[in-house]
Amino acid sequence: MSQAISDSIRAAMRPSAAALEPYDPAFTPSRINLSANENTYGMPDDVRAKVNEALCAVSANRYPQPLSDELRAELAAWHGVAPSQVIVGNGGDELLFNLFLAFGGQGHVLANVPPTFTVYRLYAELVETQVVDVPRDSDTFAIDVDALVEAARTASLVIVTSPNNPTGDLFSVEDARRLCQACPGVVLLDEAYMEFAHEGSSAAPLLGEFENLAVLHTLSKAFCLAGARIGYLLCSPSISGALAAVRQPYSVNVYSQAAALAAVRGRASFEPTIQKIREERERLAQGLGQLASRGVRVWPSEANFLLVRVPDAARVRRRLRDEFSILVRDFSSAPGLEGCLRITVGTPEENDAVLDALSTLVGEER
Amino acid sequence: MSQAISDSIRAAMRPSAAALEPYDPAFTPSRINLSANENTYGMPDDVRAKVNEALCAVSANRYPQPLSDELRAELAAWHGVAPSQVIVGNGGDELLFNLFLAFGGQGHVLANVPPTFTVYRLYAELVETQVVDVPRDSDTFAIDVDALVEAARTASLVIVTSPNNPTGDLFSVEDARRLCQACPGVVLLDEAYMEFAHEGSSAAPLLGEFENLAVLHTLSKAFCLAGARIGYLLCSPSISGALAAVRQPYSVNVYSQAAALAAVRGRASFEPTIQKIREERERLAQGLGQLASRGVRVWPSEANFLLVRVPDAARVRRRLRDEFSILVRDFSSAPGLEGCLRITVGTPEENDAVLDALSTLVGEER
Repeated sequence: MSQAISDSIRAAMRPSAAALEPYDPAFTPSRINLSANENTYGMPDDVRAKVNEALCAVSANRYPQPLSDELRAELAAWHGVAPSQVIVGNGGDELLFNLFLAFGGQGHVLANVPPTFTVYRLYAELVETQVVDVPRDSDTFAIDVDALVEAARTASLVIVTSPNNPTGDLFSVEDARRLCQACPGVVLLDEAYMEFAHEGSSAAPLLGEFENLAVLHTLSKAFCLAGARIGYLLCSPSISGALAAVRQPYSVNVYSQAAALAAVRGRASFEPTIQKIREERERLAQGLGQLASRGVRVWPSEANFLLVRVPDAARVRRRLRDEFSILVRDFSSAPGLEGCLRITVGTPEENDAVLDALSTLVGEER
Repeated sequence: MSQAISDSIRAAMRPSAAALEPYDPAFTPSRINLSANENTYGMPDDVRAKVNEALCAVSANRYPQPLSDELRAELAAWHGVAPSQVIVGNGGDELLFNLFLAFGGQGHVLANVPPTFTVYRLYAELVETQVVDVPRDSDTFAIDVDALVEAARTASLVIVTSPNNPTGDLFSVEDARRLCQACPGVVLLDEAYMEFAHEGSSAAPLLGEFENLAVLHTLSKAFCLAGARIGYLLCSPSISGALAAVRQPYSVNVYSQAAALAAVRGRASFEPTIQKIREERERLAQGLGQLASRGVRVWPSEANFLLVRVPDAARVRRRLRDEFSILVRDFSSAPGLEGCLRITVGTPEENDAVLDALSTLVGEER
């Protein structure tokens, strides 16, 4: 996918853009793909039927509703907020980027908590936002909350991922409150994986208290719509207004709006799968834990993935792909994540296959 | 749609973002909507069936192909270029914005040719790009090509719309060649409406000559997919590489990729409608021309809309909407377009309704 950019075209680029390389998802067609934290169970049949019905009813020759009115109203009712407190995006990615477009830029600071989702830093730098890192504990990945609160005092944007990607841990509601109190800018809780966590973990109940809080959700993970690109932010009318000002007005297409509306209306049908993924996460964690004597470490997770440290991780990852046709995400050369792989929790069969393969490979590698 | 942004949230925004108001498409549900240059004929039945079939076959639980591989290959084959010379976007809007993200920014210059599509200036300013205007002739809207070529010599980006929105005129291939020779940055020909122009009007044949040329096309107009948000750029591998580096990797969703692929494969089915729109454009222009004695002026157009100057235009536009339920676009207070409305060419019945209504209203207003 990577394409050479000639010197003359590169010379016309802004420096922050010229420094980038095209994103490479390192995707290889595989029998089992546990690399992108998708819901590998697929959409429940009843929802899929409603989605298809909705898609076929769409006339696409007209521009979409700019603010996805019906979907927005449904999401607002679900989360018990006003429609003006919801803004829908072309995936969480668009909302993240637009937060930097609105609140980033030269002279603005992002307080970032690595290791975490690397896209925050990427978007920050693309629009020339200064990034202040408050690193997690190198062993437990725990956040130094006091240090983060201090950094928040001069930040335009603080982002904490809860559950964190790729470490799987939650950020407490009480700590989120401290950030909102300290930060003069926007505090974003990225809760893309929150559906997989235990009840009461979301910071959304704080929305009534803080105008500067934004909570990012997505239909890409629990709700089987990674392909549709629908994320949404729960926030104050001020923050949704700021994002409405900078966004591309027709960024959310009619098909995805229709599919998402059907999926959200049918959200109860996803519950058994979500519960199953939680159970499989514990089973997979236990299975991996049994490889501890061979140097495998697994961290506790409230998401639909596990972070695992294995000896010779990059090679294990390649052999999983090439010999077993199992794709997992390689973080082994990422700062703070040396030796780590991230494995999406799949179906029981997929998880069995991963356990069997790792049991073989990790033994061999020692 | 517009939402008040509180002082404290506004204070955290970057100045270029805080200066914006949310886009208001001024949409009012109407019997006849000729305000957005959509194809009001709707998709041909055979294509619609293929589109629906493709939509229903999509499993949306996986992330999309980042670069829309199949669609890209089909577009490349259609236009006789390599796949690396095509980049697909979430509507032309995304590609335009990403051009500014890659080639705009502080210290970079856009050479702009107003009156034209106002989004260029909006995106330029949002990312702090300097805009140098080379205004069109105030009477004929002709471009001062010599002045534009001079401006291009120090521009990172030159954008010319052909046919121009909202004036309807073409930019010649020979003049496009002069721009490419003069400009050290990227020359964008926005050809969103090119399917409605006469054969041989596109600058795309110059792609083999110039690495700095980009030609923007869209499926939103001729191909009835405004709701799906699919635009694409024909350009050098260097320019597509630059855009791939700054884009959000999953910006084009699986449904729109599938629908667009079906529509592009069935593109021959759109030809009769496109031809009909060309004929109706001439008939509508003639009908409006017959109101010349009442102060109506219509400019020649190679697009699927007409620019019309009418006495008391804003009031005529309101009465069209409120008394006839006909929506057209009001440019009467836009710089250089005083007294002007833009009317999309619709079906014969829609065009008759517009002619009848204007014949009544313009008479009354005198």
